[in-house]
Amino acid sequence: MGSELMAKETKISMAVIRRLPKYHRYLGELLRKDIDRISSKELSERIGFTASQIRQDLNCFGDFGQQGYGYNVKDLYNQIGKILGLDKEYKTVIVGAGNIGQAVANYSKFERLGFHLQAIFDKNPKLIGIKIRDIEVKDVEYLDTYLKENPTDIGIICVPKEQAQSIADIMVRNGIKGIWNFAPTDLVVPDDVIVENVHLSESLMILSYRLNESNLFKE
Amino acid sequence: MGSELMAKETKISMAVIRRLPKYHRYLGELLRKDIDRISSKELSERIGFTASQIRQDLNCFGDFGQQGYGYNVKDLYNQIGKILGLDKEYKTVIVGAGNIGQAVANYSKFERLGFHLQAIFDKNPKLIGIKIRDIEVKDVEYLDTYLKENPTDIGIICVPKEQAQSIADIMVRNGIKGIWNFAPTDLVVPDDVIVENVHLSESLMILSYRLNESNLFKE
Repeated sequence: MGSELMAKETKISMAVIRRLPKYHRYLGELLRKDIDRISSKELSERIGFTASQIRQDLNCFGDFGQQGYGYNVKDLYNQIGKILGLDKEYKTVIVGAGNIGQAVANYSKFERLGFHLQAIFDKNPKLIGIKIRDIEVKDVEYLDTYLKENPTDIGIICVPKEQAQSIADIMVRNGIKGIWNFAPTDLVVPDDVIVENVHLSESLMILSYRLNESNLFKE
Repeated sequence: MGSELMAKETKISMAVIRRLPKYHRYLGELLRKDIDRISSKELSERIGFTASQIRQDLNCFGDFGQQGYGYNVKDLYNQIGKILGLDKEYKTVIVGAGNIGQAVANYSKFERLGFHLQAIFDKNPKLIGIKIRDIEVKDVEYLDTYLKENPTDIGIICVPKEQAQSIADIMVRNGIKGIWNFAPTDLVVPDDVIVENVHLSESLMILSYRLNESNLFKE
């Protein structure tokens, strides 16, 4: 069978890893349509990567798929979920209950993926005490105490960039190992802490670059 | 002088392009601190890329910097801004005035970068008529008419994934060439339309992967 997750020693390139969530999303859609199996050719047509790219990507993690049969959709979905760590549960807190913080808090999909929001903090008196998805926004003054008493896996930073590093410091000091950072700044953290950035203005600049690329090289 | 933007025929790799906004952000910070010039070594220490990486990246676009002098911060900032298309002005509309739409609408930085929000649309009667940054949310029924009468450069899609493609179709039909897509789906658009995606759950999955990576290959 092709569904055993094999341990490989080589470090997988970030380019491959960044494609995995897309596989996961497409396979989830196939599952919801009750599609049991799919060839790498069909998967390629749907997802827009070449069939050989798909085979290469998945080979990094083990031996999926079977000659002449294709992939078992549910197996592959579960295995990719496992590779992505989605078979685990994470306790998360959000610091910053402005628009972005509220948007993240309201994404019900994150709960389904195993990311459980435990608490939300802000320093704005107008926001402290309001409820977002039944979670009352706490004063950020209590972040340190809260984290000491409630071990947390992932900290989500949605504060302005000037405050982001000090929030990250409190998180790191209290054992948080993963930070999802929406503040437009690069956080300084120890090597064993993972930071994943969502820099919206960088994404907008890339769009702007690509809109102008053809002109740039015409001059 | 090193500040002429040279036309090169080769297509620049996306990896280089995705680093440009970070250069732009760091150079902007140096400018605000009144720092006039910087060596590639110093820039490297601040930004975390190697000096040779920086020289290589910038060489893709022309001949910046001078032996023994380093980079003129303001020149380089302006040139990178120009490469990123930030010397231009863009008219934008947001469709979807939920949390993400409101967060994007409220980012004052985007205005400063030349992205001017002209209109916001939603289909929710509770949102239609409210004002976000002095812009009244319009009924999405009028999106088509609005775009016909008001040529727009960039459409920002913040609706649920089920509605995203039909909104993109209206945008494309009315000449929009750039779509900033926050819906967790891949839009189908003609080749001359650029889509830049912000897929939040994919970013969260990458964080989860990286948190588990060491365990994955220990098994």
